[in-house]
Amino acid sequence: MDFNLLKDLLVPTQTKIAMVVMDGIGGLPMEPGGKTELESARKPNLDALAAQSALGLADPVAPGITPGSGPGHLGIFGYDPLQFEIGRGVLEALGIDFDLGPNDVAARGNFCSVDSSGNLTDRRAGRIATELNVELVKLLRTIKLEGVQVFVETVKDYRFVLVLRDDAERLGDALSETDPQRLGVPALPVRALNPESERSAKLVNQFIEQARKLLADKHPANMVLLRGFAKRPAWPNYEQAFGLRAAAIAVYPMYRGLGKLLGMKTIKVDGESIADEFTTLEKCWNDFDFFYLHVKKTDSYGEDGNFAAKAHVIEELDAQLPRLLALKPDVIIVGGDHSTPALLKSHSWHPVPVMLYSKFVRADGIAEYGERACAHGSLGRLPSKDLMPMALANAQRLNKFGA
Amino acid sequence: MDFNLLKDLLVPTQTKIAMVVMDGIGGLPMEPGGKTELESARKPNLDALAAQSALGLADPVAPGITPGSGPGHLGIFGYDPLQFEIGRGVLEALGIDFDLGPNDVAARGNFCSVDSSGNLTDRRAGRIATELNVELVKLLRTIKLEGVQVFVETVKDYRFVLVLRDDAERLGDALSETDPQRLGVPALPVRALNPESERSAKLVNQFIEQARKLLADKHPANMVLLRGFAKRPAWPNYEQAFGLRAAAIAVYPMYRGLGKLLGMKTIKVDGESIADEFTTLEKCWNDFDFFYLHVKKTDSYGEDGNFAAKAHVIEELDAQLPRLLALKPDVIIVGGDHSTPALLKSHSWHPVPVMLYSKFVRADGIAEYGERACAHGSLGRLPSKDLMPMALANAQRLNKFGA
Repeated sequence: MDFNLLKDLLVPTQTKIAMVVMDGIGGLPMEPGGKTELESARKPNLDALAAQSALGLADPVAPGITPGSGPGHLGIFGYDPLQFEIGRGVLEALGIDFDLGPNDVAARGNFCSVDSSGNLTDRRAGRIATELNVELVKLLRTIKLEGVQVFVETVKDYRFVLVLRDDAERLGDALSETDPQRLGVPALPVRALNPESERSAKLVNQFIEQARKLLADKHPANMVLLRGFAKRPAWPNYEQAFGLRAAAIAVYPMYRGLGKLLGMKTIKVDGESIADEFTTLEKCWNDFDFFYLHVKKTDSYGEDGNFAAKAHVIEELDAQLPRLLALKPDVIIVGGDHSTPALLKSHSWHPVPVMLYSKFVRADGIAEYGERACAHGSLGRLPSKDLMPMALANAQRLNKFGA
Repeated sequence: MDFNLLKDLLVPTQTKIAMVVMDGIGGLPMEPGGKTELESARKPNLDALAAQSALGLADPVAPGITPGSGPGHLGIFGYDPLQFEIGRGVLEALGIDFDLGPNDVAARGNFCSVDSSGNLTDRRAGRIATELNVELVKLLRTIKLEGVQVFVETVKDYRFVLVLRDDAERLGDALSETDPQRLGVPALPVRALNPESERSAKLVNQFIEQARKLLADKHPANMVLLRGFAKRPAWPNYEQAFGLRAAAIAVYPMYRGLGKLLGMKTIKVDGESIADEFTTLEKCWNDFDFFYLHVKKTDSYGEDGNFAAKAHVIEELDAQLPRLLALKPDVIIVGGDHSTPALLKSHSWHPVPVMLYSKFVRADGIAEYGERACAHGSLGRLPSKDLMPMALANAQRLNKFGA
């Protein structure tokens, strides 16, 4: 869907749209002929909502493509992930709640080990503990570079984020990575991949040189690798694209960050449970038009291969659903960013069961929210990005196209 | 699907993908409310495989478009037929197993009849017998043109192929056709449609002039018409596009040729039966990652309007299917290049029933391979070209997209 088309059709109204994203919701049976996590969960409220909804199977990126968290969310948020790409450095910064400015260049950093000749011996520095990472990051923060602010932030284990900021002059982010992806050779210097990035390349190489000196006696973490250089993209935000004042309710920083990237207001959740997220939803209900509520643990348990625990998280969400219904949203989307079958212990390419509820939806009358039930729904097999225009239509926020 | 996207995600593994293409498999009931050829065939093995597969209805080119053999195959092979066009001359050359070089310009030729003023009286020379065609082609082979090799090859009846080859200098193929498509007027000279094709145009016009003289007393075949000038396209092959070492197993030259065009190795079949093709499959199983097995006669009987014989070919394939299953492919696609309903006695626009099997597919649990059964499948209504990325995903040959 072209945002320009939507923009011309948008009408302001008071309707509200709620989107519940269960991360990695799609699954697989553990044995041929069995049920998926979603199909085996006891979820009377979701099933009752399904009966009043249009159902379908959504491809977040394209058929056969396994989405990362970024592309998976962009899809269900209505942004074509093949058109809107997020750099790795930006994702990493979002994941730690770093407030990226429009001219910040962010990179993923690894502590690594090198021998006395400077050749790599471990690309992850023996997976050092986060506590040690915090200490080393303090050292790296002493590095000064001319004309830019330098931020170094711990992520976890051997991983950190580097951000260069220049509020005055544009910094390019077209930079090659320093990780040679193999051992026995030295880290590569950064190269500018276009003329606008030459100053950035020079600065990053100076950072690396200073880091090398500062870390010289810190084996196994005696060097750094940098990759995924990127700036925050300048995309239409939710207000511009869809005319919606949007709120992001998520416990994990990465998902708040993804919302923020699209101009959603991130709302602090007191606590970490799904119930806590619904409490936050209730509190901010009057202040927004669109609500993104993210449930993380369906994905986490899928990645762990824990079928029963994943099904249980779905039941936990189901138990909270009446609180959302009590707020009487005009439109509800229930879906996910991708599939994470416990069988595969990873994200997968399988399409995501989705449902779209409104007073005006043409309900399929299928009283089950599940993969095979959704395969029979009237939304059919659809790109995830098509959900948002349908949600806007059902919220009566779109005018007629043409006369 | 963009090949560049896939290319970035490909991972080499040992998995194997088998694609069974039943030519013209899609059908229609002979009477309202009846069954199609596929639905009426007794096919326990295909039905059992369907129960473990994801089903759908595939459009080889686009909804409503009846595909020729070329575009129909390109679609199921994963190449968008609207983006990848094969010239008619190339198809005709493939159909007779002519080994087209990268700089060969091929054209479809007709013998035709002209009167004493050179005006066309029959565009197909009274549909002369193939034996006479062979004699006349011997005459045409005496034609010499400066700087190029000339190949003239009998196809069938009044049809032949002309190929000009120059290994040194590039030949253009943007040439207008000589067939005026009506009687009472002379054949048209060839015109170059771009500057690079001017030399080709001159050479082809010299060929026509010499042919006119050689055939002067050979009425009804006393002249030639040429059209569909084309060169072998330079497309990404199966190894480049999908990372697959591919084998093409087909009895008819046209289909081996289509495979060859995409870099598949064509494997000689001893015999002509479906069983013979499966024997070939077994023999070459260890040498490839991808296997295209083509069944021709579903289409031939469809074109004949022979409903029962078409259904019988499906039963014959079904009886051989256990031999494929015994090889334990990681992924199986069963489908077709287009529909050929016996009712219509021709290719048709109807979408093609397809199924995708793997250990990791989300099986629909529909225990029938048929047009209406496939309409309820989770693949939905899909472009044929989407099947290959899904096959690669199920073969665990694709990395995650984005982080």
